[in-house]
Amino acid sequence: MSAEHRVIVLGAGMVGAVIAEDLASDPALSVTLADVNPEAFSRLSGRHRLQTLTADLADPAGLGRAVEGFDLAVGALPGRLGFAALRALIDAGLSVVDISFMPEDAWDLDEAAKEGGVTAVVDCGVAPGMSNLLAGYAASVLDALESVAIYVGGLPKVRSLPWQYKAPFSPADVIEEYVRPARTVVDGCIVSKPALSEPELLDFPGVGTLEAFNTDGLRSLAHTLKARNMVEKTLRWPGHRELVAALRDSGFFGTGEIDADGVRVRPLDVTSSLLFPRWTFEKGEVDITVMRVEIKGTLAGAKAAFTYDLLDEADPETGFSSMARTTGFPAAIMVREVLSGRIQDRGVLPPELLATQPGLLGRMLEELEGRGVTFARQEPL
Amino acid sequence: MSAEHRVIVLGAGMVGAVIAEDLASDPALSVTLADVNPEAFSRLSGRHRLQTLTADLADPAGLGRAVEGFDLAVGALPGRLGFAALRALIDAGLSVVDISFMPEDAWDLDEAAKEGGVTAVVDCGVAPGMSNLLAGYAASVLDALESVAIYVGGLPKVRSLPWQYKAPFSPADVIEEYVRPARTVVDGCIVSKPALSEPELLDFPGVGTLEAFNTDGLRSLAHTLKARNMVEKTLRWPGHRELVAALRDSGFFGTGEIDADGVRVRPLDVTSSLLFPRWTFEKGEVDITVMRVEIKGTLAGAKAAFTYDLLDEADPETGFSSMARTTGFPAAIMVREVLSGRIQDRGVLPPELLATQPGLLGRMLEELEGRGVTFARQEPL
Repeated sequence: MSAEHRVIVLGAGMVGAVIAEDLASDPALSVTLADVNPEAFSRLSGRHRLQTLTADLADPAGLGRAVEGFDLAVGALPGRLGFAALRALIDAGLSVVDISFMPEDAWDLDEAAKEGGVTAVVDCGVAPGMSNLLAGYAASVLDALESVAIYVGGLPKVRSLPWQYKAPFSPADVIEEYVRPARTVVDGCIVSKPALSEPELLDFPGVGTLEAFNTDGLRSLAHTLKARNMVEKTLRWPGHRELVAALRDSGFFGTGEIDADGVRVRPLDVTSSLLFPRWTFEKGEVDITVMRVEIKGTLAGAKAAFTYDLLDEADPETGFSSMARTTGFPAAIMVREVLSGRIQDRGVLPPELLATQPGLLGRMLEELEGRGVTFARQEPL
Repeated sequence: MSAEHRVIVLGAGMVGAVIAEDLASDPALSVTLADVNPEAFSRLSGRHRLQTLTADLADPAGLGRAVEGFDLAVGALPGRLGFAALRALIDAGLSVVDISFMPEDAWDLDEAAKEGGVTAVVDCGVAPGMSNLLAGYAASVLDALESVAIYVGGLPKVRSLPWQYKAPFSPADVIEEYVRPARTVVDGCIVSKPALSEPELLDFPGVGTLEAFNTDGLRSLAHTLKARNMVEKTLRWPGHRELVAALRDSGFFGTGEIDADGVRVRPLDVTSSLLFPRWTFEKGEVDITVMRVEIKGTLAGAKAAFTYDLLDEADPETGFSSMARTTGFPAAIMVREVLSGRIQDRGVLPPELLATQPGLLGRMLEELEGRGVTFARQEPL
């Protein structure tokens, strides 16, 4: 990137703040961090010079005005605002790197992005994000792709009963993961399975034994990769799944009103009131991120497997949580890739579609390692 | 018993109905079953001739009128009505056998019962009840009593996840058991411990492994027996305790109102609405009762131990649940003991105080065995 680029980060949540600081440490970039709530800016460490902007980003017109004059926007808004913001950015002709975990299918905006000449990299965090890039890379190397399995979890480093869990992002989204049916790929067909189903115990070096279960996390991979079998599973300390399954199966996550001794109430609201305070990381409490991506297939006539393992931990120096680090850094690195002009693709691009960009994965892994986020790689010779 | 005796059973719940039918099968007895709700009489099988009486037994004056002319009353009312009913019966000068699990201390009525020349056998079910009688008997045989441990549970025969539990009596009382601190005797002192604490796994012949944990069930034994250590533990299929402990520790059994997205509600009311239907035995579903009473001490200078094991199951022929059988039969047998005139004691009498009555325990165990409720006995030679 030659001249100074102007980047706006939308949303000053935990991840947005990490992305903004990472970008602001780069002398080639002029960074603005925008949020509706000015108190959110208190997350910033003050180590790096950046602008802040208070604006209602839930309003597409307001968002369009806020991003005028910028070269690129980073979408780091809550999932429920993500799709509308992405549409507004594409309408404004702005390139985007997005990590908002939107429930809608960003692909619906692909045509509009192509027409506008916009590069919109979506789902660009850790999982979705790095998982997509690694799976896409391995798929591109293999002669034939057989299976993709993604295991990922954000966890408290220290296990405390009964839940052995703290939510590194919105606990409401966590419960949504425990309820929404999980789309998997079985023998080439998309098969929906109950969330929390098919539990298995897996060992992770430096962590120990974790329990994996189905969640609905394949997203774009279910369509972009042609594997016979694909699954995304969430990792938790063993024991957690059993408790939340009992709650779910007994109706405690129900969103329909029930009668509680004459009071009409949604069980999920009661459960949220009771659990969310218990599922919130306390100051100084360390989170870890554990991810394994396994890709199998054939190469030169033989079976071949790629395995990528990530173990990351909150950084006491910066105060960045592990989930914010592992989600925010890939987005921040991708911003440089897009601004460099090396990515000529236009449209809505989940990371697996960028996996064949020359050198991109290597630079991504190297840049992440420079930030202390290191993937252990097992690849065919 | 010479002439025909007139007995009134107060409360036509599951246990009251079993007691009434057992007594009505006896030609020497004329039996009346009383309840405020005439629909409760539909529980009766119709195999035996008995009278029914619809009366408000929650009103002491009405209860006093209802029992006029009877020789003995059986208290089988809900626990919350038990104490007031017992007082009214003692005031009316009527002998009583009671199985209502009252929260109050029946002992407070001992003086009144003695003054009125009344024999009131209380806590006369399975546990409390048979557990008291067995512990009292062993204590009377031993030269020195060291410890008493009572393990008891009413369970579904078939385990189904997640709860592996159905409540053979009021599920509200079950949750109360999971909340109320458990009074135990440690080194001769009454020590309160949290409910659900000190879990241990125990094997029961014909059942398998059950999990035992502290509940507040010693009642009168904590005062009447002089053991250095005494404990009462509830038995459940392994896994249940962990789930209910998670609920309790997260506030789901709380009785204070909380805010649930703007609605003020008591968590316990929500939990009850969700769990009680799931914890209710369905028609034809079989319950079992498991109990072990271990009494240790010294006899003739050597260590000695008494162990009594009970495993009972719902009776498909009568339709009586195991919990109703094991609770109701001891009371029905005790009624004959009182009416026989063999018991000369007056006052409020928990069963351990009757354990030295000549032949009583032997008759009780024999009569229970005749009804299919058999204790396996391990006693010092």
